[in-house]
Amino acid sequence: MPDISIVAIGGYNEIGRNMTAIRIGKDIVVMDMGLRLDRVQIHEDTDVESMPASDLIAMGAIPDDRILEGVDGRVRAIACTHGHLDHIGAISKLAHKYRAPIIATPFTADLIAQEIKSERCGAVNNPVVPLDPGKRYLITQDLELEFIRVQHSIVDAAFAALHTREGTILYANDFKIDRTPTLGEAPDFARLRALGREGVRALITETTNAGVSGKTPSEQIAKDLVKDVLVGTEETRSGVLVTTFSSHIARIRSIIEASQKMGRVPVLLGRSMEKYWHTATRTGYAEKNGLWVCGRRKNIDRALKRIVSEGKDRYLPIMTGHQGEPGATLSRVSNGDTDYLIESGDKVIFSAGVIPQPLNVSNRHAMETKLKMRGARIYDNVHVSGHACREDHWELLRMINPEHVIPSHGNLITHGHYLRIAEETGYSLGSNIHLIRNGQELVLG
Amino acid sequence: MPDISIVAIGGYNEIGRNMTAIRIGKDIVVMDMGLRLDRVQIHEDTDVESMPASDLIAMGAIPDDRILEGVDGRVRAIACTHGHLDHIGAISKLAHKYRAPIIATPFTADLIAQEIKSERCGAVNNPVVPLDPGKRYLITQDLELEFIRVQHSIVDAAFAALHTREGTILYANDFKIDRTPTLGEAPDFARLRALGREGVRALITETTNAGVSGKTPSEQIAKDLVKDVLVGTEETRSGVLVTTFSSHIARIRSIIEASQKMGRVPVLLGRSMEKYWHTATRTGYAEKNGLWVCGRRKNIDRALKRIVSEGKDRYLPIMTGHQGEPGATLSRVSNGDTDYLIESGDKVIFSAGVIPQPLNVSNRHAMETKLKMRGARIYDNVHVSGHACREDHWELLRMINPEHVIPSHGNLITHGHYLRIAEETGYSLGSNIHLIRNGQELVLG
Amino acid sequence: MPDISIVAIGGYNEIGRNMTAIRIGKDIVVMDMGLRLDRVQIHEDTDVESMPASDLIAMGAIPDDRILEGVDGRVRAIACTHGHLDHIGAISKLAHKYRAPIIATPFTADLIAQEIKSERCGAVNNPVVPLDPGKRYLITQDLELEFIRVQHSIVDAAFAALHTREGTILYANDFKIDRTPTLGEAPDFARLRALGREGVRALITETTNAGVSGKTPSEQIAKDLVKDVLVGTEETRSGVLVTTFSSHIARIRSIIEASQKMGRVPVLLGRSMEKYWHTATRTGYAEKNGLWVCGRRKNIDRALKRIVSEGKDRYLPIMTGHQGEPGATLSRVSNGDTDYLIESGDKVIFSAGVIPQPLNVSNRHAMETKLKMRGARIYDNVHVSGHACREDHWELLRMINPEHVIPSHGNLITHGHYLRIAEETGYSLGSNIHLIRNGQELVLG
Amino acid sequence: MPDISIVAIGGYNEIGRNMTAIRIGKDIVVMDMGLRLDRVQIHEDTDVESMPASDLIAMGAIPDDRILEGVDGRVRAIACTHGHLDHIGAISKLAHKYRAPIIATPFTADLIAQEIKSERCGAVNNPVVPLDPGKRYLITQDLELEFIRVQHSIVDAAFAALHTREGTILYANDFKIDRTPTLGEAPDFARLRALGREGVRALITETTNAGVSGKTPSEQIAKDLVKDVLVGTEETRSGVLVTTFSSHIARIRSIIEASQKMGRVPVLLGRSMEKYWHTATRTGYAEKNGLWVCGRRKNIDRALKRIVSEGKDRYLPIMTGHQGEPGATLSRVSNGDTDYLIESGDKVIFSAGVIPQPLNVSNRHAMETKLKMRGARIYDNVHVSGHACREDHWELLRMINPEHVIPSHGNLITHGHYLRIAEETGYSLGSNIHLIRNGQELVLG
Repeated sequence: MPDISIVAIGGYNEIGRNMTAIRIGKDIVVMDMGLRLDRVQIHEDTDVESMPASDLIAMGAIPDDRILEGVDGRVRAIACTHGHLDHIGAISKLAHKYRAPIIATPFTADLIAQEIKSERCGAVNNPVVPLDPGKRYLITQDLELEFIRVQHSIVDAAFAALHTREGTILYANDFKIDRTPTLGEAPDFARLRALGREGVRALITETTNAGVSGKTPSEQIAKDLVKDVLVGTEETRSGVLVTTFSSHIARIRSIIEASQKMGRVPVLLGRSMEKYWHTATRTGYAEKNGLWVCGRRKNIDRALKRIVSEGKDRYLPIMTGHQGEPGATLSRVSNGDTDYLIESGDKVIFSAGVIPQPLNVSNRHAMETKLKMRGARIYDNVHVSGHACREDHWELLRMINPEHVIPSHGNLITHGHYLRIAEETGYSLGSNIHLIRNGQELVLG
Repeated sequence: MPDISIVAIGGYNEIGRNMTAIRIGKDIVVMDMGLRLDRVQIHEDTDVESMPASDLIAMGAIPDDRILEGVDGRVRAIACTHGHLDHIGAISKLAHKYRAPIIATPFTADLIAQEIKSERCGAVNNPVVPLDPGKRYLITQDLELEFIRVQHSIVDAAFAALHTREGTILYANDFKIDRTPTLGEAPDFARLRALGREGVRALITETTNAGVSGKTPSEQIAKDLVKDVLVGTEETRSGVLVTTFSSHIARIRSIIEASQKMGRVPVLLGRSMEKYWHTATRTGYAEKNGLWVCGRRKNIDRALKRIVSEGKDRYLPIMTGHQGEPGATLSRVSNGDTDYLIESGDKVIFSAGVIPQPLNVSNRHAMETKLKMRGARIYDNVHVSGHACREDHWELLRMINPEHVIPSHGNLITHGHYLRIAEETGYSLGSNIHLIRNGQELVLG
Repeated sequence: MPDISIVAIGGYNEIGRNMTAIRIGKDIVVMDMGLRLDRVQIHEDTDVESMPASDLIAMGAIPDDRILEGVDGRVRAIACTHGHLDHIGAISKLAHKYRAPIIATPFTADLIAQEIKSERCGAVNNPVVPLDPGKRYLITQDLELEFIRVQHSIVDAAFAALHTREGTILYANDFKIDRTPTLGEAPDFARLRALGREGVRALITETTNAGVSGKTPSEQIAKDLVKDVLVGTEETRSGVLVTTFSSHIARIRSIIEASQKMGRVPVLLGRSMEKYWHTATRTGYAEKNGLWVCGRRKNIDRALKRIVSEGKDRYLPIMTGHQGEPGATLSRVSNGDTDYLIESGDKVIFSAGVIPQPLNVSNRHAMETKLKMRGARIYDNVHVSGHACREDHWELLRMINPEHVIPSHGNLITHGHYLRIAEETGYSLGSNIHLIRNGQELVLG
Repeated sequence: MPDISIVAIGGYNEIGRNMTAIRIGKDIVVMDMGLRLDRVQIHEDTDVESMPASDLIAMGAIPDDRILEGVDGRVRAIACTHGHLDHIGAISKLAHKYRAPIIATPFTADLIAQEIKSERCGAVNNPVVPLDPGKRYLITQDLELEFIRVQHSIVDAAFAALHTREGTILYANDFKIDRTPTLGEAPDFARLRALGREGVRALITETTNAGVSGKTPSEQIAKDLVKDVLVGTEETRSGVLVTTFSSHIARIRSIIEASQKMGRVPVLLGRSMEKYWHTATRTGYAEKNGLWVCGRRKNIDRALKRIVSEGKDRYLPIMTGHQGEPGATLSRVSNGDTDYLIESGDKVIFSAGVIPQPLNVSNRHAMETKLKMRGARIYDNVHVSGHACREDHWELLRMINPEHVIPSHGNLITHGHYLRIAEETGYSLGSNIHLIRNGQELVLG
């Protein structure tokens, strides 16, 4: 009988650059191929799109997949479970090494196709296969991939269940337990519970927020917060700018909805705003209606000019720049580089937290300082997380009840928090919960 | 023409023991007489109810009102703007020194009457006069007190506007700008805006959260969070305990409402739970229906026994102890002193934050550790604050547009944050915004 | 050939209650039997001395040694590597279960004998055998124990090397790399380096400060800091009180030395001050000269009275209470319970940090608040740690170069930090560095 | 009789860009003209040397001295009390507006002359007059300036006492109470105490560390720490790099001294290292001996090449880059841009803390990450502060006993901490301790 192993390639020692290989006998299925953005950021003037994989590996920015050379097997498929860069951002650098299809939910697949197209360093020819949650894909005679609907801070997120003769491996990165999502349906708890009953050989799961007590609030709470900030004020005539994650379609829709309550016209501004919104319209997550969306700098500047001339109080610009990224629309506004000049009392709403990397903290600080010097009022962290917290993990673990648990997508501290949750549920380190490090292979007993 | 001065008696150097005197010529109106609980707590075995005022003054627990002896005037009225102990807790120690009525909104007045009754150290005979928000009380020929409805984490909170020949003084402690409260109506913005138009001589206001960016979320958000935690779970059969502020009637009602969605019977447990709930029923903030409320230890223990015997999954006990106070119901549960024994998977919901005093932090830590050792799952901070944040202060200040601003109810750090808000609105330190310290009198220019 | 295993009994999941068993074939040697004080503290009115072991195990206060029942072997010796309570505090509760001698360096052995004597719950009859660092003790034909001199925040600290036919196991808890100690000699680097050359099978080591960058400063720095604070001031006539760890004889000697530079007479006050100082004089770490030492409350109070009457500026009282422990001498001073009344400008020097447990933080806060209310000036953290920091661990690991490393004496977070150090040195998780949890046995490959 | 006023121009609302004007009748003396570096840093590609004053004022980088236009008087002298950029960095932008000499201690005067020379935007022609501590300078018939020796993290720091007919104003920015400095003598306590006896009308003083408890350790402690880190190790053959403040001559000398104990040749590398060291040799604070000092990039690179070729273990490079400043020598080393390639085990000693600005934190993080990726071992914060802590302020205040106290050089939070110290010493806000904001003039009563 074929044995099963889990190979930690990336994301086991850090947040970012996720990549896991699951080997069943001589067949390998790769889960995710992600980018670690903060490693790119600390090297000034790094142009990821034109850098070769070897350099990106050396700087720790993408998974070091050379360890697969020592693993006895062939990659049969690559599955990506959602469209964030730390899950798909290395596809264009690494996938061509493997003659295998890339399987992803429709929204994710569309993004992957765009990633591949924008790559300047080499050609990735792997077929990209969209697969709906709830559906299955036959990888080999003995290997079947199933996507299960979950919720995360991007649409079309899924768990990947790999059904093998030796049992099912459930790859559960990233997710939140949200019973009242604002876009799409709740996670497919019925299917997850059924999997638990059928028996799961191993659960590979993220630990990002395992140290945060309680449960992650529903995205509905974020929607309420957005509305509360935008509508629950006595100052209704000033300029209002909102910035949020471009890929967070649900959130953007909540902001658009609130803009209607305010009687303002929403406008999406920024290159990645355009990219993700268009992807969403193509895949049915947003309507192809007449929403004003500007991606190119020239168009953005023209839009801002028009907004100012027609009246700031008639529009709600929704823009890139929530982390203070240089060159993003809000950063340019903060520098006074556009016609939208901040005046005393204008509001800037961050529907996002600060990603706790020193460079983000610094960029945000610089941008906020400039905005405040111009008189802006700042509304920070109008946001809820997309990652499961401690009690959500506890629920999932009890629901799935796997033989083995392998924390991935985190560092030793977040894995340590997860380990305690697992111990409280009855697992024991080294016996059925396993800490592995990038570059290690765990053979399931 | 009579001059006006503001005398900082307590709460200007610290959070707690609020007391302000406003002198108009020879007439003085006192605003609030509060207790500073953390000063009581660091002295072990302190029994406030039987301690004389002088000792409590010496330990910094109540305002040092002896400074009024040097102020040339007579106290004509004492107004309390809401029912928290840091606003009314020194009434029973200090009010008898002044031959003046105590004026408060109905809920607050009821609590004050109870405070006075429970005092063991001396008799307070001042009349307690309930006054509805929106109504006025004639103190002297030339002095009129008006209450204006606001929102806070307790019902029936009000601002006090003191109308004098020299203009209006607005005492605004404590409040939040909540346009969608879950109990009672939104603050009376129309009246506040009218006051602003009429002209306000001085605004005395709290600064507790002036350093917290953005706006305080509506209590509606807390209600949503409570529901999300209680209902948004796949683990529906375990025991669930909730603890929150006894005086936060709105929150308790949200919890009761959620209990109905869960199909569980709510039960209020704890001495102060009973006290505030009964006050709420008497004043119309809660229905006098058959809700199960137990205040005495014997009754609490009997109730918990019955809950266990009939099934933990049929009840939702709502209890005291959110700060880990020794002797509170949840503390006793955590010690295994009741029949409600925590089992693995039972949930404990804290619909409260930890008040950031070391003793609270320690008590909470001890209680949570014990609960976890018994297998409890902890849901922390299912809560939003009742204090205005930075942008709420900015809004209020622009709405009222007072000649002078005097930060009260805070320390130098929170006052410093407020000062910056005021400077951004056009005020200038020493000229029309004034930092004063406990024991100082500010004569308005 | 006999196999070797390491059994994690206590201190592997937490800071405190250290206990490790090393099994060589059927022979077991136990290292340390400690108490976890913070678990005692959160249960009010816990009297450790009169509680049975089972209760203390249930509350997580002492190691759960019942797991040894499932280990196939017999305890032949118990070795304690220094005299802190988290290493010897459970001797009086657990040692009697094993017919084995307790081996410790002289200072430690003296403390153990006192622990045993003060136990009220049962009789511990194990012989206590003093063993000097550099000396060896034959446990069985095939098992030899060697103590190696190190430095820590208590005198006579040692590593324990267990020489077996299968190689040497080095138990290295707790230590600092101090080349310029103020009492005793530097760690025996020559012997440690020799051990490294001979080959060490496994290193078991603490991780308390593994997350703190750099090296722990020498105790010489603490001595300099003490002198700087006491002598480097222009205010030389006020009362000065010092509090520090009673067991930290080196520090106390530095304070005494500084007192002489100040021209003040040092006085040791407090029950544990007396206990440790007398132990130090018996074992040659302090002179039996006429130093004034008071342990009993009556004597302390008399001494403080005399100090006040003769002049605060003639004495330097060195007292218990650095963590604000209720009942300790400084706590009593802060409450005004002695004749030494704090006056404005009196200085209180904490030659200790705050142990980061909420109860300590709370106790310290309460005590400092009271001291400040009386006018005291506070000098905090005139101290350096006794635990190795990151680079010290890195040095030790390279010096010893063991086949296997087992982090002990820490929690998952500190172990995680250590793991990274070991990885940087070439070790690999699961292969030659092993994370084990309380209750687990690791068989060395 | 002429009245006296204090005009807060810069540094009263923030750390940085210090500038104070003291007006005595119609005569004005300006104290310090500094730069706020973090405001420069958040604006990318800002070239201070070629920017006009107006732009730098607009971005808050230099004091807005236009408020002096509204002050009735003429600037008679500009005094700079030490050579850090936040005290002299705006001289080259602002001093030419005033026909007045610039008076400074010799080391400071030399730096000012260099600042003026490097200015590309306009000509500053004011005479620069060196004045030794202990000496006096007659500004007008009625105005005399005296410098009093203090200690700070740069040599030749002084207090400025302005003797007027209305009494003495003591400007005390920045300082530490160090009785055992390693370079130069202790502060002139005798003169300070004499000033206190003679009577000081007003004390203007910094509050940077007023919130830090205790006393700032002597620079002797830093020297001991440096030695402990460099010499107190068993790893003696690896490469060692040290980085520290270029202007901190005392520290650099301690490092040089330790290098001799290590048997390594010290080498100073970096443009500002060269600048300050040469200034020190010119002014007698360092010997003009054969120390190897390289300022230009070409020379630095040549030196590093030679160090590597002759053996890393023969040299101790002391370099710029402690805050991770892009382009500084250590940053270039971390990027692999020099021949000194970091190998596993090489040590990097930061004899500096991280200046708590987000951009510094980010730069340091990036640099440390790169250094660690190359195998460096990091020794952080081998440092003590140059700013007085709480008890030092308390001592100075009691020593000087001024009629009025004006906190400067800080923000509302640090001023708040200082205010409490002053209150504990008997001062009262608004009466004899005054909080003023940039742009305000305080007329002394």
